[in-house]
Amino acid sequence: MSDILQELAVILQERKQADPNSSYVAQLHHKGLNKILEKVGEEATEAILAAKDAESLGSQNEVIAETADLWFHSLVMLSHLDISHQDVLNELARRMGISGLDEKASRS
Amino acid sequence: MSDILQELAVILQERKQADPNSSYVAQLHHKGLNKILEKVGEEATEAILAAKDAESLGSQNEVIAETADLWFHSLVMLSHLDISHQDVLNELARRMGISGLDEKASRS
Amino acid sequence: MSDILQELAVILQERKQADPNSSYVAQLHHKGLNKILEKVGEEATEAILAAKDAESLGSQNEVIAETADLWFHSLVMLSHLDISHQDVLNELARRMGISGLDEKASRS
Amino acid sequence: MSDILQELAVILQERKQADPNSSYVAQLHHKGLNKILEKVGEEATEAILAAKDAESLGSQNEVIAETADLWFHSLVMLSHLDISHQDVLNELARRMGISGLDEKASRS
Repeated sequence: MSDILQELAVILQERKQADPNSSYVAQLHHKGLNKILEKVGEEATEAILAAKDAESLGSQNEVIAETADLWFHSLVMLSHLDISHQDVLNELARRMGISGLDEKASRS
Repeated sequence: MSDILQELAVILQERKQADPNSSYVAQLHHKGLNKILEKVGEEATEAILAAKDAESLGSQNEVIAETADLWFHSLVMLSHLDISHQDVLNELARRMGISGLDEKASRS
Repeated sequence: MSDILQELAVILQERKQADPNSSYVAQLHHKGLNKILEKVGEEATEAILAAKDAESLGSQNEVIAETADLWFHSLVMLSHLDISHQDVLNELARRMGISGLDEKASRS
Repeated sequence: MSDILQELAVILQERKQADPNSSYVAQLHHKGLNKILEKVGEEATEAILAAKDAESLGSQNEVIAETADLWFHSLVMLSHLDISHQDVLNELARRMGISGLDEKASRS
């Protein structure tokens, strides 16, 4: 199974250094943390609205698109703060008792 | 590389059917979509606050914990609406031009 | 003391019927409830960010402007759902044990 | 017409100094700005959910209660940052071209 989040994190890291005129991600970093966090809040609201519409109307596509937006901008937030998305996944693994990367690393 | 999200999704799917008295996830599903979406909104706010504190105080651990909470509850939201997290990852892959799972599947 | 909220509510009611090309408020109603609620979520996030910056930097003007935005869009939300802002104020009065308008009305 | 917001602001100011064991408002101030802002974000989400339910189910009472919660906690936020709610109302008046308190004051 491919690791899309990992590939995405690599791309986001590259674009962090890109020209703000050529990259949306570079533009977000250039505008600063508040702009990135506004987007996280905005996309959380839009995901919530899409989920309510899915409940009453049965439309799943909007939920998928808005959750993708939410995860995307939370990855940009992590990148802006020099935090690896893997630390978040490891935290999730730890809580659920899943044998995650960190445990594998600790065994080697 | 292990796929923590995939393992987590499997666990969340199992717990969706569990006794609400024994599982936090089952309890969320039992309380219904609004309760789950309240948590998504709440954790988005807490992630934003943690990111602001990381900016001024340099503390990364809170950001990791709150982003884990945000992703966790958005996975519960997807599960409640019978949407696979893989659809969200595929949407992210599609946007970024990453060769994702869906493309692999379409080749076989 | 003037009642700014009351005057504002009257203006918002008038603009609800206005040409969407000439009025921001009419435009919001025309786009529908989701658009209005997106703005409520967005402005809540911006008020939160402004409050964090006020805490670390001492800047009050942004908090005032963003809270005004939040109240404004929540008034548009109420108007869209044909709910009077006075009902919200009466609810606040009731909770705090303040002698509010509804009580005055019930006495007459 | 009574000014409920003004009465409420006076009460909130008094309770800011109260014993955290006897007052919810004092407790919020004691826990600090992050706790207050978490509540603002939480109540914004709950107001949004109530508005969606009002749209599909026609229930107005929840919208009134959740908007009251949102305004209440944004007033506590202002109080915590030593900002008067009147500054927010004046800002709203200024934007809408309403003759507000500030203008009255400037005339005297």
